[in-house]
Amino acid sequence: MTKKIYLAGPDVFLPDALEVGRRKAELCADHGLQGLFPLDNAVALAAHDASLQIFQGNEAMMNDADAIIANLTPFRGPSADAGTVYELGYMAGRGKLVLGYSNDPATYVERVARFETIETRDGLLIGADGLAVEDFGLADNLMLIHCLDLHGTPLVTPHAAPADLWHDLASFTACVRIAAQRLGPKQAR
Amino acid sequence: MTKKIYLAGPDVFLPDALEVGRRKAELCADHGLQGLFPLDNAVALAAHDASLQIFQGNEAMMNDADAIIANLTPFRGPSADAGTVYELGYMAGRGKLVLGYSNDPATYVERVARFETIETRDGLLIGADGLAVEDFGLADNLMLIHCLDLHGTPLVTPHAAPADLWHDLASFTACVRIAAQRLGPKQAR
Repeated sequence: MTKKIYLAGPDVFLPDALEVGRRKAELCADHGLQGLFPLDNAVALAAHDASLQIFQGNEAMMNDADAIIANLTPFRGPSADAGTVYELGYMAGRGKLVLGYSNDPATYVERVARFETIETRDGLLIGADGLAVEDFGLADNLMLIHCLDLHGTPLVTPHAAPADLWHDLASFTACVRIAAQRLGPKQAR
Repeated sequence: MTKKIYLAGPDVFLPDALEVGRRKAELCADHGLQGLFPLDNAVALAAHDASLQIFQGNEAMMNDADAIIANLTPFRGPSADAGTVYELGYMAGRGKLVLGYSNDPATYVERVARFETIETRDGLLIGADGLAVEDFGLADNLMLIHCLDLHGTPLVTPHAAPADLWHDLASFTACVRIAAQRLGPKQAR
């Protein structure tokens, strides 16, 4: 049976989200996998319980999927999109294969420094909020990064950020290739 | 047996993190619960694999816990701390009771507007990055909020943000009270 991949990411917020989802699903199909894109769930946005319907649709898709490929490119701040991170955790908790990529290869410290001044106090990096800045040379919070290391495959990043951070699918495609190998290479072509 | 609560939050990055963890654990004990605070895991920060040790310690704690209380107060941007959100998802995936609070009661749209100008295009709110701003009147991404609604109890928030966003434990205490009721009221005192 064709293995299913839940396609998580802030891609759903793009103006051309449906087209991006279609391209991602095509790339999955090229590797013998079925991509499940959140916007495939039909929800009337004007419905009074639209957000709840979206949650329930996404959760059902995740329960149905064998793996997740999470777009962990930083979103409105130094870290990945909260909804995507939630879904990464949920899939790890369910014991599914977890993969992720970030089109921005910068470390967390470099990312925080784009938004605020970081001070050094007693050998610790401290952000503008007075809270410590995680400094392990990782791209994001250690929980996300090591989740991928231990329950899937290390975060996939390009050597340099691509010109189009939200449409370049090279690192996504690398994740698809790994997922195909891990979930049954016989289905890859 | 005493039920265990995993105490998730960016509290670990506070200068007085150990003291905050101690207060949170005390509040749990007052309600017949055992609080598990991430910094209770002894890790030598200078170790070459310190971040991996922290991940493994936190994951073991979560597997051991009956519930999570997540501090979802926005952290370095409009959304909650990525590590905390990951842990919320992980615990939901494991079928554990999930509770969360935010000391900032603002909606996601209000939070985004603090950092950037939001435009309206074709009836949709669009952020400075050109991506849509979720507009369901919720405090954060719908995945987090409805996870709490369906797998625990709705997000706990104060009517107004407290003077000390990172040390006020009123909403945390409300979560502890709910957890005690849900996990076995006989142990509450």
